[in-house]
Amino acid sequence: MSIYTSNGSPPFNTTRASHIVLTSKDLDKTRYFYETAIGLEVTHQDNDSLYLRALEETSHHSLVFHQSDEPAVCKRMGYRVYTDDDLNLAYDHFNSNGINAIFVENPFQGRTLHVNDPLGVPLEFCATMEQSPSLMQTFHKHHGACPASLDHVQIATHDVETALRWYSDLGFRLTEYTADDVTDEVWGVWLKRKNNTQDVVFSAGLGPRLHHFAYNVPEVANIIHVCDVMSSLGLAHTMDRGPGRHGIANAMFVYFRDPDGHRIELFTSHYQFIDSDLTPKRWSLTDTSRSQLWGLPATERWFYEATNFDQVELKKPLLNAKPVTLESFLEKT
Amino acid sequence: MSIYTSNGSPPFNTTRASHIVLTSKDLDKTRYFYETAIGLEVTHQDNDSLYLRALEETSHHSLVFHQSDEPAVCKRMGYRVYTDDDLNLAYDHFNSNGINAIFVENPFQGRTLHVNDPLGVPLEFCATMEQSPSLMQTFHKHHGACPASLDHVQIATHDVETALRWYSDLGFRLTEYTADDVTDEVWGVWLKRKNNTQDVVFSAGLGPRLHHFAYNVPEVANIIHVCDVMSSLGLAHTMDRGPGRHGIANAMFVYFRDPDGHRIELFTSHYQFIDSDLTPKRWSLTDTSRSQLWGLPATERWFYEATNFDQVELKKPLLNAKPVTLESFLEKT
Amino acid sequence: MSIYTSNGSPPFNTTRASHIVLTSKDLDKTRYFYETAIGLEVTHQDNDSLYLRALEETSHHSLVFHQSDEPAVCKRMGYRVYTDDDLNLAYDHFNSNGINAIFVENPFQGRTLHVNDPLGVPLEFCATMEQSPSLMQTFHKHHGACPASLDHVQIATHDVETALRWYSDLGFRLTEYTADDVTDEVWGVWLKRKNNTQDVVFSAGLGPRLHHFAYNVPEVANIIHVCDVMSSLGLAHTMDRGPGRHGIANAMFVYFRDPDGHRIELFTSHYQFIDSDLTPKRWSLTDTSRSQLWGLPATERWFYEATNFDQVELKKPLLNAKPVTLESFLEKT
Amino acid sequence: MSIYTSNGSPPFNTTRASHIVLTSKDLDKTRYFYETAIGLEVTHQDNDSLYLRALEETSHHSLVFHQSDEPAVCKRMGYRVYTDDDLNLAYDHFNSNGINAIFVENPFQGRTLHVNDPLGVPLEFCATMEQSPSLMQTFHKHHGACPASLDHVQIATHDVETALRWYSDLGFRLTEYTADDVTDEVWGVWLKRKNNTQDVVFSAGLGPRLHHFAYNVPEVANIIHVCDVMSSLGLAHTMDRGPGRHGIANAMFVYFRDPDGHRIELFTSHYQFIDSDLTPKRWSLTDTSRSQLWGLPATERWFYEATNFDQVELKKPLLNAKPVTLESFLEKT
Repeated sequence: MSIYTSNGSPPFNTTRASHIVLTSKDLDKTRYFYETAIGLEVTHQDNDSLYLRALEETSHHSLVFHQSDEPAVCKRMGYRVYTDDDLNLAYDHFNSNGINAIFVENPFQGRTLHVNDPLGVPLEFCATMEQSPSLMQTFHKHHGACPASLDHVQIATHDVETALRWYSDLGFRLTEYTADDVTDEVWGVWLKRKNNTQDVVFSAGLGPRLHHFAYNVPEVANIIHVCDVMSSLGLAHTMDRGPGRHGIANAMFVYFRDPDGHRIELFTSHYQFIDSDLTPKRWSLTDTSRSQLWGLPATERWFYEATNFDQVELKKPLLNAKPVTLESFLEKT
Repeated sequence: MSIYTSNGSPPFNTTRASHIVLTSKDLDKTRYFYETAIGLEVTHQDNDSLYLRALEETSHHSLVFHQSDEPAVCKRMGYRVYTDDDLNLAYDHFNSNGINAIFVENPFQGRTLHVNDPLGVPLEFCATMEQSPSLMQTFHKHHGACPASLDHVQIATHDVETALRWYSDLGFRLTEYTADDVTDEVWGVWLKRKNNTQDVVFSAGLGPRLHHFAYNVPEVANIIHVCDVMSSLGLAHTMDRGPGRHGIANAMFVYFRDPDGHRIELFTSHYQFIDSDLTPKRWSLTDTSRSQLWGLPATERWFYEATNFDQVELKKPLLNAKPVTLESFLEKT
Repeated sequence: MSIYTSNGSPPFNTTRASHIVLTSKDLDKTRYFYETAIGLEVTHQDNDSLYLRALEETSHHSLVFHQSDEPAVCKRMGYRVYTDDDLNLAYDHFNSNGINAIFVENPFQGRTLHVNDPLGVPLEFCATMEQSPSLMQTFHKHHGACPASLDHVQIATHDVETALRWYSDLGFRLTEYTADDVTDEVWGVWLKRKNNTQDVVFSAGLGPRLHHFAYNVPEVANIIHVCDVMSSLGLAHTMDRGPGRHGIANAMFVYFRDPDGHRIELFTSHYQFIDSDLTPKRWSLTDTSRSQLWGLPATERWFYEATNFDQVELKKPLLNAKPVTLESFLEKT
Repeated sequence: MSIYTSNGSPPFNTTRASHIVLTSKDLDKTRYFYETAIGLEVTHQDNDSLYLRALEETSHHSLVFHQSDEPAVCKRMGYRVYTDDDLNLAYDHFNSNGINAIFVENPFQGRTLHVNDPLGVPLEFCATMEQSPSLMQTFHKHHGACPASLDHVQIATHDVETALRWYSDLGFRLTEYTADDVTDEVWGVWLKRKNNTQDVVFSAGLGPRLHHFAYNVPEVANIIHVCDVMSSLGLAHTMDRGPGRHGIANAMFVYFRDPDGHRIELFTSHYQFIDSDLTPKRWSLTDTSRSQLWGLPATERWFYEATNFDQVELKKPLLNAKPVTLESFLEKT
């Protein structure tokens, strides 16, 4: 099977994964987790909402929480487009292709376009946000994991093939993917707009659900230090996987679950992926080094738990291939 | 004074600084310096030439040396364009604007376009190079500074304003710059195509001359380790500046001079610069923190020595502003 | 219950854990593992034996392997005493207390005293070894985990209480220990002569068996790098536990199994333990943070597999307390 | 010339450099420097005094400041002895050798013995201090340089030879020293009681004066981070030397001057020095790598400025040998 590649040029210029909008049952607990432990900066909090960003970010937010007494969900995944003109192009593109897209006003960000992807993921696109100097060189405030910037999200979907086609047609480029050796079915796709390997990842599973969002950190020692910090803050139980090294994209990673169960990844940076002569790297689903170069596999909990999107119906995956979990690994050995 | 910004869209898609072509009087000495000490990978050597690349690079080379008994020079600065079509667009653009551009054949890279910029810098553009798996995950071969990829070059020029205009019109974006507080004259410009703050830097000085080329490394400890390695290999005297932290772009840096006097910078990565609502950061020439957040200033040698381009006439800088050197700093204190 | 403390002054001056003598079925495989992957220096190899040391060590060896076609064992655990006079004092002390101690000649080390402790562990004491400059400042040869020096060994024993008494009477000092909350029975004791928290650890189990020996490394990043190196050398499967942070002594650790199944720990350094007013730190056996501040528990394999001593009879532990293993943890959750 | 070695056993058991007592014109400024920037923990402050300790220390203080409107001085250098009996032995030893030693009461520490060494340095010895749990595993409070523990002090003296003899006779051991190639005169001596290479260093110069006191930090990145922190706190000008790598003892170092001009070194740890068969390492005064393996020499300011001891007369050095300074280095090149 040859993997899908889009022929045309993108209808508008999406530049990067920009922000995530989630709900939280308790904004103060959420703030403690992300500000005190993880090391994000709070840029706004009121009774209903909490806005955070990372240390190298000048835009107002990359992570937003709205208070809700319902079980926590993801309300929206946000992308940045290059200019306001790109927003108009996007509006036209979606509506002329039968996809309902509407402009809304959101605090702290420019004109914003709402649309759902064919998997059911609620998206928003904007070109601008309120800007203020980052904490990048305010070194004495760096703490926790010292997160530098939001990098990507991973979404579980029942239909990876459709995700690959739709996002490729929007100009996303495939950099790495996992596939079944026998059937050639694609299990996961790593897609990017910016210069590294990913802005969004789709993996086969009950979906659509937000598996995790990921901030990059400068150094390996930051990954270990945030584990230590979680321990001394009494939050060691929130560790969900790792630390370890992904074969895919070479990230040194660790995963935590926030007070509402949302999963955050902290990782050292991916490699550059710019040139047109680079080809997507294929990994076999049976090659466990794709997921981890060393150490024990992730638990079932890491593979199968995720955050629902707000009022979006779940569908079972079209594929039956299953990754090796810690539980299945221990049974075999 | 308002800083120059280009109005139009770029005539072709340059994607990044790609490679440097230098001469060396002794390829074996050069190889020892870059392979054994710095930690680059040799991808080809014969009697006349030496090709190297960094640990995350899949392209054949980012650094090329040709043997020469003459005083060492820089033959050419190389950029990558996205596709072969971009090469044709570039050919047309230059020749229709009265700039002589010609296609040449170079080993290990696709069709290559030669052209000189208005400052006299000999450039080459190509879309493709021979590809082979990088050493990124061959961890047991990582050593020296563990350089990840070529990031940028800095060029001394007599006319920074012209550099800013010409490269802006090619689609380069200004991210940071230094200027005289009184006259508003621009002393240095940091210009970029890829997603961080720079592919090429122009600073005022006798030029055009190659001031340095720079590889990024993963961690602060890599910067210190390569200093230690230089010491144990008997090459400590090749250190030219640092280690220190640049205010501009926030790089933790160190500079060395190779056996022919070419200057290499090794630094930890810059920050992301993608969004259209980011504005160029201005630094005053009298603010020494632009150059170094802490530590003593660089020596005159660092400021005033550089590599000539091959058979290109030197011109005196139009500006008279002078940076603070170690020597002038010690005189004052 | 009050924990045992010796009243008298030590009969002779033991200064530190010095070296381990093991057997190997294949010295070349063993050398590849310790020299190429772990980063130890080989100081001697012949058909029958292999000697290694760490990067800051000037003594000839801290790890010795003898070729053997039998299942691999530990032949002896080596301690350093301060002077040759201390060896004479040791000889007199043991023999006058009914413990058979004899002098032997060993290559590369001074006069050596052989004796068995009451648990059956074969020990040797020496005051001197052949000296040569270390690789500490030969930075370009540092690789793998960059191990600095041998730090301690852990031994499983059927009778921790006897171990504590005997070694305390030789001048070893208790720094941390694990105990049963209800019965006050002591499960593990961390004992030291040098200025940090341990030279030898005894833990309850089928014994005597060598659980592991440990080299300290400079930085957290060295721990992760050696994991990566194991991966790229095809040795990722030799990882036995970690990486993680021990609550006890605060070590960031990782464990590997060598080609014969001997277990090596690599860890960042412990804290200083010198002053007489410091008291031993007690940890509850039910407090899993003693073993790991974060992350999943170790496998049964880590807890229950170990290296036999040469021709020493095994005895079942007097205690029945059992630590939490990964397997038991997953069953409960 | 053979270097002096003591024959006898020490009259009492000094275990380590313990604490420094200094004066400050402004305790709040001092606190900001050491607590907020350097990362020490304040254990007590009142109108007249400030007590601090490092992250792995359980003793009440390693650094003490008394408010004074006079130019800042060092009041006393503190050593720990093992037991209270050692204090009695010390009292008898000094007084029976014609050296006036008296017991005093100091807050937060046990019975304390005051005495002056023959160079005029006011010393104090104690066996115990108030103990409380350290911040070692309170990871979320680690910041600045993350100093682990006080390691050593360096003292300028007019008579290095006498320092070597007197401290050797107290049981201090020489580990490294610098000497004149021609005259064999000893310029600096590194002396230790604990298991690494130094508790006190004496170097030739106008003295006695406290040149610096030094805290060890875990990692190279901590050294660089504290430089960055000094920058963002507006304290970059307090950097006095570095960062760099000492040839002697292999420390990666940086030096700062506190608000009263006292000099603090932060460095990564030295190597182990325990065995009796280790010999002191000799460095030539003309070998600049003894002082720095790479980078430019220290300024005259670093070499010649130091803190006076309280009411102690200064004497000119008996030696005329001069180290290479940055200023003399630049003149020659």
